[in-house]
Amino acid sequence: MRVGVVEVGPRDGLQNEEKVLSPEVRAELCNRLAEAGLSRIEAASFVHPRLVPQMAGAEEVMSGLRRREGVIYAGLVLNEKGYDRAVAAGVDEVRYAFPVTGTFARRNQNTTVEEAIQLSGKLARRAREDGLRFGVTLSVAFGCPFEGKVEAQRVLEIAAEVAQEMPGELVLADTIGVGVPGQVRELVEGVKGLGVKVGCHFHDTRNTGIANALAALESGAEVLDASVGGTGGCPFAPRATGNIATEDLVYTLHGMGYETGIDLGSLIEVASWLAEQLGKELPGRVYKAGGFAPVAG
Amino acid sequence: MRVGVVEVGPRDGLQNEEKVLSPEVRAELCNRLAEAGLSRIEAASFVHPRLVPQMAGAEEVMSGLRRREGVIYAGLVLNEKGYDRAVAAGVDEVRYAFPVTGTFARRNQNTTVEEAIQLSGKLARRAREDGLRFGVTLSVAFGCPFEGKVEAQRVLEIAAEVAQEMPGELVLADTIGVGVPGQVRELVEGVKGLGVKVGCHFHDTRNTGIANALAALESGAEVLDASVGGTGGCPFAPRATGNIATEDLVYTLHGMGYETGIDLGSLIEVASWLAEQLGKELPGRVYKAGGFAPVAG
Repeated sequence: MRVGVVEVGPRDGLQNEEKVLSPEVRAELCNRLAEAGLSRIEAASFVHPRLVPQMAGAEEVMSGLRRREGVIYAGLVLNEKGYDRAVAAGVDEVRYAFPVTGTFARRNQNTTVEEAIQLSGKLARRAREDGLRFGVTLSVAFGCPFEGKVEAQRVLEIAAEVAQEMPGELVLADTIGVGVPGQVRELVEGVKGLGVKVGCHFHDTRNTGIANALAALESGAEVLDASVGGTGGCPFAPRATGNIATEDLVYTLHGMGYETGIDLGSLIEVASWLAEQLGKELPGRVYKAGGFAPVAG
Repeated sequence: MRVGVVEVGPRDGLQNEEKVLSPEVRAELCNRLAEAGLSRIEAASFVHPRLVPQMAGAEEVMSGLRRREGVIYAGLVLNEKGYDRAVAAGVDEVRYAFPVTGTFARRNQNTTVEEAIQLSGKLARRAREDGLRFGVTLSVAFGCPFEGKVEAQRVLEIAAEVAQEMPGELVLADTIGVGVPGQVRELVEGVKGLGVKVGCHFHDTRNTGIANALAALESGAEVLDASVGGTGGCPFAPRATGNIATEDLVYTLHGMGYETGIDLGSLIEVASWLAEQLGKELPGRVYKAGGFAPVAG
């Protein structure tokens, strides 16, 4: 079975790194990832550079891409201004994210959940008119640093409202890395039941990320976000690690017989290159241990 | 459901650390683990100190234990000499390990697989006479650094021979951390079919450890090895990490509704204390990120 892997390292990974990489280096990262077989890359974040300095120069990142046929370059947006910029910069796909809890929504993007749901519908319609791929990510769907545990029922209610506009994909995000496979199964099956394509976005903050990813696939998810080298972190847990590492995910997926179109050896080289750019060891494990020939593909 | 967790940090964790801890500190580690609710602890390895200097002074470790009621203190042995020492030192349980591949068996403990199977029977009989708990671990059951992929059929043949002497428990070990959940299910179900109690021992070398642990439980395993802080490493992959971290495992297990009898907060404190003793950050993730109140117990 084919699994869609969305590489979010250039965006979610790097936006949580202390060291700021130039737009040129971030574009080069995207280019190397595409060469390793990644066919969907979240290349840039169209947020205000004052809020996330690591993501400044999104337009330069986009113009630095050597576009490969068959590769989808996505941009994250949090509002209409960001949507306008993303379209102007030439993204193939817009990903809009908002938190499912009121406190996080207010603190992270100064909105309410209801307003955010409205905006998701508006952006979905605009993307349809503009002929762009569009997806919605529900942040902190497995737990919130401010409100604690998030009830699955509440997430599914929000998902149902968002699904009315039929985005191409609805992504459940464990933004702070607290989820376990039991929660994943409940949420993925619930959202799947709404008739939309389900993606999942896991952080490996508490080492549950790979187990969650497999549970998501077994429950009907078709797409998984991951970041090369496991870059990134969690602003709410200073010593914690970030997204699940793409190469760790790919190692497991290939071992389980899933197809990804990604060359693990090349991806490990990209992780090593990125570690040099950031001047530090990254949390990913496979790039340090190496693959294992008879299992890894 | 109750899951048995065997803490192997004082043995498998520390035997792969560069820094050698004194027997006093290792005994103190066992004592702190017991206070955190660990009820089975692999406290020492009765191998020759020339071969594994990190494990020198097994007898001193044993005599430094503040024995708690209900806690089982185990020792690892690789031969009869080790068995004699373990009994003299007062272990409650002997764990005998041997590799399932010829090359690893010769290089690691200068034996053949057939000889090792014979010895497992002999030690099982001796342990029965001595009134001690006894278990057998099959090393490199998921892959061998010298011989590559290990066929499940071969592992199950060896397990069937070992099972004839009915050890208390048969443990499948992914010594170099290459296994994926699909393999785990096949092996655990196969060994379970022999009528023995199945344990699993996973390394998190390639970030598959927690997913493997859950797959093992879902397939009928009742016991899991883990090491506090995820200490240890892999002699065959110098930059790689060691066993699955006990606190990462416990976080996941509690989130999934399994009972362990372990207090996660206290265990995190032990991991932090051990990191200080070793003078480095450990690979475990939960001790750095912290638990999450509504999920972690």
